[in-house]
Amino acid sequence: MLISSPRSAIRSVVEQFVREELSQEDAQIAGAVWSMLSAGGKELRPRINLLSAQAAVAATPPDPVLASYMELIHIATLIHDDVVDNAGLRRGQHSTNSVHGNRFSVLAGDYLFSWVFKKITQDYANPIPTILASMLSEICNGEVKQLRATGNLSLSRAEYLDIIGKKTAELFASCAEVGAVAALQRVTRPGPQLRDHPVVRALRAYGWNFGLAFQIRDDLLDLIASDAELGKPAGSDLRERKVTLPVIAALEAEDETMRVSLYRLFESPPDAAAAGGQVLRTVIERLRTSAAVSQTKRAVDFYAQQARQALAAVSPSRAVAELEALTHSLSEYQVA
Amino acid sequence: MLISSPRSAIRSVVEQFVREELSQEDAQIAGAVWSMLSAGGKELRPRINLLSAQAAVAATPPDPVLASYMELIHIATLIHDDVVDNAGLRRGQHSTNSVHGNRFSVLAGDYLFSWVFKKITQDYANPIPTILASMLSEICNGEVKQLRATGNLSLSRAEYLDIIGKKTAELFASCAEVGAVAALQRVTRPGPQLRDHPVVRALRAYGWNFGLAFQIRDDLLDLIASDAELGKPAGSDLRERKVTLPVIAALEAEDETMRVSLYRLFESPPDAAAAGGQVLRTVIERLRTSAAVSQTKRAVDFYAQQARQALAAVSPSRAVAELEALTHSLSEYQVA
Repeated sequence: MLISSPRSAIRSVVEQFVREELSQEDAQIAGAVWSMLSAGGKELRPRINLLSAQAAVAATPPDPVLASYMELIHIATLIHDDVVDNAGLRRGQHSTNSVHGNRFSVLAGDYLFSWVFKKITQDYANPIPTILASMLSEICNGEVKQLRATGNLSLSRAEYLDIIGKKTAELFASCAEVGAVAALQRVTRPGPQLRDHPVVRALRAYGWNFGLAFQIRDDLLDLIASDAELGKPAGSDLRERKVTLPVIAALEAEDETMRVSLYRLFESPPDAAAAGGQVLRTVIERLRTSAAVSQTKRAVDFYAQQARQALAAVSPSRAVAELEALTHSLSEYQVA
Repeated sequence: MLISSPRSAIRSVVEQFVREELSQEDAQIAGAVWSMLSAGGKELRPRINLLSAQAAVAATPPDPVLASYMELIHIATLIHDDVVDNAGLRRGQHSTNSVHGNRFSVLAGDYLFSWVFKKITQDYANPIPTILASMLSEICNGEVKQLRATGNLSLSRAEYLDIIGKKTAELFASCAEVGAVAALQRVTRPGPQLRDHPVVRALRAYGWNFGLAFQIRDDLLDLIASDAELGKPAGSDLRERKVTLPVIAALEAEDETMRVSLYRLFESPPDAAAAGGQVLRTVIERLRTSAAVSQTKRAVDFYAQQARQALAAVSPSRAVAELEALTHSLSEYQVA
């Protein structure tokens, strides 16, 4: 039931959770989380978590609490990301840092991380807490690498994939993995060896490839979607001198005009690159009409296909079909 | 041996750990941690952790790795604190945020937290991971409360104690608690019931009261010590409009001149309160020569005494004597 109408059911579970548990502890932090929740989002991570549990053990009852933790960890990373990116808007709403300030946001993110870990270490056996703590350390490592790569137009595809693997794919992979592990823990001997179970590995590989495709698509949308569709100004990545696959693909094409405009943008003072800046507008327009767009779409399709292939090692079921359907949605570029 | 020359031995263990483990993963983060370690500090938290293990089970071998985790968690909170406080100096050195920027510091702190949690959930049985995750959530909650209390000259003693209990005493209490729990886990059945063991409760109470005394003393030193002794400008708390016990005690004394100067300082524009500002200097001088100093020292002595009383429930040993000796050092105000 949770699966058949996943979006609203998952959101209401997470919301109930925040209302009942988190707001007992600190109303301001709960309020910040609440406003991020009500701003929407697709709840892809808890959905993949729930579907992976069912894909691993068909009869497993849904564990909406574990799924909620996945969304809350995601929200905590977003709160810190917005401090790191100095973002003003998130999902079309004012970001936590722009409402409450960076200081509060750092602490609210820390609080949410530690609160979720308190609950997880209390209620879930290993390897679940270890998977999630390792995941968080990988995410931070990816974010540090991304920060260090700011403005580096020599960033290679491999370096880009390493960054997005850590900062994005790792969370999707872990959502799938802990879903499968939690389900298997109910029917078999718990322990760290569950990470090596073929179904767990397959679902983790699904999540990993899904996450890569998801982030590449997200980086493309930042370029080709409208401000309204994105809920924040288009071209944010370029404005922040974040080098993503469309830019790497454009530079690989050895189009001299494109190369000159990109270097001019990245070397221009921040003012010129600000929203509506002429240099920025020119670069966005050039990129949008270049072959980099179709090349980036091909990369999305490639990882979506890899995700589907990973599912081949899992017995067919309705949950597996739903996981597969999610990969097809990655190749659509109409933002709802 | 680790106990008899605790300072250098503990530091070298933590340093070795950072060199061997952390720098494998991200050299820049390891570098930031390294510079905080080499700036010194008294390693009180790992010492209390090691001594509590020996106080609980005399024959227990020291676990320098667990003790290192305690210091690394402390360092991670300091890295985030400096972002929250916008601090430029820490232990007489440039703070992480002033060297690498707030963005890097947020991520470096997150990385360190999650890395330590990954290790702890891998290698230590419950209730240790849960104690440490709960602790972290309490620390963040205390920091949020402190941030919200900024500039609030009506802050009560009870509210102040609640804040420092969460932001400082909780960490000392947990260092003592997990030390004792880890030692008992070697000689008795592991499980969450160990938190209720009378020796664990006594050592936790020791750590809690030690932590309160430690923070009150720290807040007093910020007022009465010199810049050189502190490794940062004296009066930082007043400059940041942080209301601490000396200020609360001064306001309780109903000295009208003092009240007027404090309100003038807190209402003055930030410039006037900046280092060397006349209003700030006047307030510091007034507070230093007021009865608030001796009253605050009495509060330190009270909690140091409570810490010693908690030790009464633990069988006498050399470790217990060392824990007791640490509480006496709290009543000394010569910063080495």
